[in-house]
Amino acid sequence: MKKNIIVGQSGGPTAVINGSLYGVVSEGLKHMEETGHVYGMVNGIEGFLHDHCMDIGSLEATNELELVRTTPGAYLGSCRYKLPEDLGDSVYPELFKKFDDKNIGYFFYIGGNDSMDTVSKLSRYADKIGSDIRFIGVPKTIDNDLVETDHTPGYGSAAKYVATVVREIATDATVYDNKQSVTIVEVMGRHAGWLTAASILARKFEGDNPVLIYLPEVAFNQDEFIEKVKEGLESTPNLVVCISEGINDGKGTFICEYASDVGVDNFGHKMLTGSGKYLENLVKEKIGVKVRSIELNVCQRCSCAHLSRVDLDEAVNAGIYAVQAALDGETGKMITFIRNKSVPYELSYSTADVNIICNKEKPVPAEWIINDGSDISNAFIDYARPLTQGYVELPTKNGIPLFAYRK
Amino acid sequence: MKKNIIVGQSGGPTAVINGSLYGVVSEGLKHMEETGHVYGMVNGIEGFLHDHCMDIGSLEATNELELVRTTPGAYLGSCRYKLPEDLGDSVYPELFKKFDDKNIGYFFYIGGNDSMDTVSKLSRYADKIGSDIRFIGVPKTIDNDLVETDHTPGYGSAAKYVATVVREIATDATVYDNKQSVTIVEVMGRHAGWLTAASILARKFEGDNPVLIYLPEVAFNQDEFIEKVKEGLESTPNLVVCISEGINDGKGTFICEYASDVGVDNFGHKMLTGSGKYLENLVKEKIGVKVRSIELNVCQRCSCAHLSRVDLDEAVNAGIYAVQAALDGETGKMITFIRNKSVPYELSYSTADVNIICNKEKPVPAEWIINDGSDISNAFIDYARPLTQGYVELPTKNGIPLFAYRK
Repeated sequence: MKKNIIVGQSGGPTAVINGSLYGVVSEGLKHMEETGHVYGMVNGIEGFLHDHCMDIGSLEATNELELVRTTPGAYLGSCRYKLPEDLGDSVYPELFKKFDDKNIGYFFYIGGNDSMDTVSKLSRYADKIGSDIRFIGVPKTIDNDLVETDHTPGYGSAAKYVATVVREIATDATVYDNKQSVTIVEVMGRHAGWLTAASILARKFEGDNPVLIYLPEVAFNQDEFIEKVKEGLESTPNLVVCISEGINDGKGTFICEYASDVGVDNFGHKMLTGSGKYLENLVKEKIGVKVRSIELNVCQRCSCAHLSRVDLDEAVNAGIYAVQAALDGETGKMITFIRNKSVPYELSYSTADVNIICNKEKPVPAEWIINDGSDISNAFIDYARPLTQGYVELPTKNGIPLFAYRK
Repeated sequence: MKKNIIVGQSGGPTAVINGSLYGVVSEGLKHMEETGHVYGMVNGIEGFLHDHCMDIGSLEATNELELVRTTPGAYLGSCRYKLPEDLGDSVYPELFKKFDDKNIGYFFYIGGNDSMDTVSKLSRYADKIGSDIRFIGVPKTIDNDLVETDHTPGYGSAAKYVATVVREIATDATVYDNKQSVTIVEVMGRHAGWLTAASILARKFEGDNPVLIYLPEVAFNQDEFIEKVKEGLESTPNLVVCISEGINDGKGTFICEYASDVGVDNFGHKMLTGSGKYLENLVKEKIGVKVRSIELNVCQRCSCAHLSRVDLDEAVNAGIYAVQAALDGETGKMITFIRNKSVPYELSYSTADVNIICNKEKPVPAEWIINDGSDISNAFIDYARPLTQGYVELPTKNGIPLFAYRK
């Protein structure tokens, strides 16, 4: 008997999470002899619990599905909903009743480590009750911190964004190169520095900006930082420094928390200050040069102008491979990337047990962080560069990119 | 006798200021029968005073000049140097002595209204002493606030950046569309709202985000703003609001200054808060929904990924036209744009007296600001859209854009 497919998105958006959605839907539609409808959960498992579904397979009849492929964000909407640890909770039979009502045979969930937790729990519950629904996770995160995979879809485009934008910022920062200045760029990454490390790709030549790069993997020493900035200003009068939002003192305190005494605003709210803002004030105080901090905004995870062709293709393929794996009988798995070689870059797709992936984080290897934690090694460049290659031509209208959206 | 050309850049960078530099240099080199060298002032008139010059014409022999065309920032470096009001000051004979030493006959200065002040003063001094050096200004500003011209080079690309990025931010903001939220985007523009107005181009349909748009041209009332946000949330649960950094109460106080009592940081520095951050706290206090503010950073003025083909072409043409005007005997002029029609878009180039341009600002017309100052009219769309058309293919290397820089 034919079984239907259902697919959902969860966690923070990326530039290519809809690429994976496109992959799942288009591949699902190719196997109509085994599958029926391709449904989409609106706002992930949380929305599904409230019966928010759509027949996403029907988009293929229009140009909309093709438009989904290059639209950033999460076309189906997302959620941050954690299923109960206790598989005896009443939410599980409730969910599986709904799966049965819709004749679901294949469940795909596109997300990061929290989303893999959902796949893990649902597949374990299915095993417990003897359900034959197959649950497959499709990786997604700009943080690139999932274990058991060489990298994750979303990272390559975010890395390309950071590299390009930091090069632009450095170009902007040096127009008054007859005056000393420090520009601090704060990049997303609470616990893993993969994205901040990508700022090294912005360098036009050895010794170019960003001269200093700090990741959360290494304890951040404020005095040593000031010395490094002073040193850097000698060779580079307009110094650009990139930091992860999550830099910390190695003893459990984020650097931004050092600014916790900054007081309250008119409304009595504690003023929240990022690590970049804190270091801006620190440099102003200790060195006295002109200094500016820039927090790269949500575009890090949703810029379509910096889509990496390699990243988008891999995101689509991850969705396609997920459908194939489920049809082959796999369940409780996440799609993984295996790098065969870097030059020329060559990738294989595989699967790994989702239970050993969920709720874990992969840090940047210690040996790739050099110069007392203030720089990144060339081994990282060899790793990251292939993931940022190529551009994607976007559909546009009236001079700006055209996005798909649920009507 | 052959006379040399000198060209400089001044004020804040744009994505296409180097396009105008390319125009001046390439056109200058085409008229070698009348001109000799094409020099570049490094860091504008301030650098020239310290004899910082380069033979920028020599770049043509390499691929470098072509690369300059699409490089953001200011290849020659910039300055914010104001010449003395008193034409009797000793800096004037000093400068003209340096012009003579380099056999300068044609002086081009690419910049905004402050830079036009430099062109005005130098041309008036030349007139006073009977010098035949010709001084021509080439307009440049993302603010689009120069008078006597339909628009300015740099605006179209910045507007395209704002439109694209606000559309991306709106897409990102709506992934959790089952929860209410407000996203406030702060756009550059201290006195004129042209760039913030361009956020209207981000709307995918009537009533789409950004639902509210506030410019500095209209007095900002905080109570009315809160009412508009409440109203907006009813139809658009994930509301995006765009504001100019310079929104003010109409009585001379910037909205960000209302947050001036937020206290000092650890170092005793007054915490600077932007208007977006202030409104974030206001919405949190008065409405209590999830709210985030995003300050678009310097990429507004230096993003190469959002270059408008129309803008870049016009920037180059402005440089070319400047050289032709100078060779035709004009001086004390700025190149201006005259729009013949919007559909299809058709532009002519002309010149205007630089003395009536410098130190003036052109606001967004009052009739284009509607709904009690919370929205922009379609007439603005007709004005702005042609300026944002087309993309520019960038030279890239290793997956990111290649930029020219002085070695």
